[in-house]
Amino acid sequence: MVRAYNFSSGPAMLPEGVLEKVQSELLSWQGSGMSVMELSHRGKDFTGIARNAEATLRRILDIPDEYHVLFLQGGATSQFSMVPANLLRDQGADYIDTGIWSRKAIAEARRYGRVRLAGTGERCGFSCIPEPGSLEFDPDAAYVHYTPNETISGVEFSYVPDTSRVPLVADMSSTLLSRPLDVSRFGLIYAGAQKNIGPAGLTLVLIHEDLVGEPVAGTPTMFDYRVHVKNASMFNTPPTFAWYVAGEVFSWIEAEGGLEEMGVRNRRKAEKLYAHLDNSDFYKTAVEPGSRSWMNITFALADETCNSAFLSGSEAAGLKNLKGHRSVGGMRASLYNAMPEAGVDVLIEYMREFERTHG
Amino acid sequence: MVRAYNFSSGPAMLPEGVLEKVQSELLSWQGSGMSVMELSHRGKDFTGIARNAEATLRRILDIPDEYHVLFLQGGATSQFSMVPANLLRDQGADYIDTGIWSRKAIAEARRYGRVRLAGTGERCGFSCIPEPGSLEFDPDAAYVHYTPNETISGVEFSYVPDTSRVPLVADMSSTLLSRPLDVSRFGLIYAGAQKNIGPAGLTLVLIHEDLVGEPVAGTPTMFDYRVHVKNASMFNTPPTFAWYVAGEVFSWIEAEGGLEEMGVRNRRKAEKLYAHLDNSDFYKTAVEPGSRSWMNITFALADETCNSAFLSGSEAAGLKNLKGHRSVGGMRASLYNAMPEAGVDVLIEYMREFERTHG
Repeated sequence: MVRAYNFSSGPAMLPEGVLEKVQSELLSWQGSGMSVMELSHRGKDFTGIARNAEATLRRILDIPDEYHVLFLQGGATSQFSMVPANLLRDQGADYIDTGIWSRKAIAEARRYGRVRLAGTGERCGFSCIPEPGSLEFDPDAAYVHYTPNETISGVEFSYVPDTSRVPLVADMSSTLLSRPLDVSRFGLIYAGAQKNIGPAGLTLVLIHEDLVGEPVAGTPTMFDYRVHVKNASMFNTPPTFAWYVAGEVFSWIEAEGGLEEMGVRNRRKAEKLYAHLDNSDFYKTAVEPGSRSWMNITFALADETCNSAFLSGSEAAGLKNLKGHRSVGGMRASLYNAMPEAGVDVLIEYMREFERTHG
Repeated sequence: MVRAYNFSSGPAMLPEGVLEKVQSELLSWQGSGMSVMELSHRGKDFTGIARNAEATLRRILDIPDEYHVLFLQGGATSQFSMVPANLLRDQGADYIDTGIWSRKAIAEARRYGRVRLAGTGERCGFSCIPEPGSLEFDPDAAYVHYTPNETISGVEFSYVPDTSRVPLVADMSSTLLSRPLDVSRFGLIYAGAQKNIGPAGLTLVLIHEDLVGEPVAGTPTMFDYRVHVKNASMFNTPPTFAWYVAGEVFSWIEAEGGLEEMGVRNRRKAEKLYAHLDNSDFYKTAVEPGSRSWMNITFALADETCNSAFLSGSEAAGLKNLKGHRSVGGMRASLYNAMPEAGVDVLIEYMREFERTHG
């Protein structure tokens, strides 16, 4: 069977080896006669799968013991509410605005209380990340929230903001597990699974135990971190199959060499594609060099009237989902962990050929 | 490969034909070179899958046009909050208490406002459903909530309560799609998928358009029905794979003869097992005849000290997950759509043999 190179920003490619394993045991997990989809979440089979997934994640990310790992539902969008509902309190919070996803988080947080802008990418029309020196934090804020990678525009922080004693909260939906990370710099990390982690419908939350406290009155029980911590993410039936696939992805990362190796590969893939963009007058990217995402690379043709010809040709060549987000236009190549370097090579070859025939 | 008869209350068995189809296209859906797990939820492939699933569901359930169908996350447990957050208002609501799941819904609703008990199964220690004549509804209530089937104790309504003009809300997690249903009798129906619908991590909501309105202040955006109606369940990334599997289950139901046929099969399976329980002094069931669930059949040995021998033997015989809920003890056989009649026959054969050797 021919597998496509799928540049979707998410749901995105999964490692082929993981899909093959999932396929092989789809009707009978480890000879049980049951699909993982059919396992009771309270039974020892599934609780074993769940515990193993968490243990592998803790190893590959080197998560300190004082962090809880939660496997939840509702996506990053639910975290936009859960974070302020549980953490904002009377102090208010600082948010950094670097693009569409930060702004969604900010809009939802404002429904819960005072939100201060600690920095923005306005200077460059949001095609760059603010300099560390331009960030202004309120030392009394309940937390600082930022979006290390903006999936839509393709800008990415090359540094972790220093917020001193104020807990740092990060929407890492599109970067978690793409490279090594010092978890101890953060108070809370959340990520929708559908980029580097697993299938859509699962959300990872890493939360420092000191931040688990009483939410604001009226918070639905399902939005109370205490409840999920107390019940080890099994307060209600969790998304069992997605949790299992995520565990297989964690094992794949570990077997491939861990996050160091993921980082090496992801840097190499991204640098290769940016180099091709920079060495061409035919293609262009709006993102400033120091702010370029390894995960989501946005570009366009210098003559944008040819974008649609580029896209119909790439689709026909088995290079799927290269169309940019409607708010940006042009093209976007998402190069998550599961995108092989060969996919980038084939894309660059296609770009060369397209330039030769349309240049 | 040998498939087990899995009597789990949920996540539960899925139709073998559905699992085989899902397996066959796991790495390349319809020759696309992509797993459904890898499809962008905004792309035409997945939106086609999503639309087809809804259309098939509307056909098999004969859902009137004035109902919205939502494919959400968070399980019935999230609906315990969403329903009162969106519908309760100053009028308060009536709830019927028939067991553990009703009480979870009631406890959460009380956090939102006034809840009146319109009826309970107290008379019989919750091993029966209240008689229609015993229910007392407040004509000014915002809605009446009930649990048509209590998965844990195994009691089930044999009738739909007549609430006159007050909208009826039902947690149909364990009965939706098990037989024909007159949707027009309800204002809102919700169901976690992991019994008759599909994998855990998906929640179906059927809501009459007149009930879609402004929720109470402070409701997270993800808990606002208006948002999901407006965005056709794609406000954020939905649980795409679970949605696809559910669509395959809907197609399987339709191909097998629809909900009429499911009802015939489910009644026959349940009557067979209850007949065996009633014709035996060795086994017993606490549930009153008029209140017996077709879906979750609870029973025990007359001599309860033998329950654990029964369970270790059944597990070894490939009859999985017959252990009753910890709050009830004994045994529970969940006979959802995907449990073949042959599974019930094998269970009864095992029960006969166990009685012969332990009686």
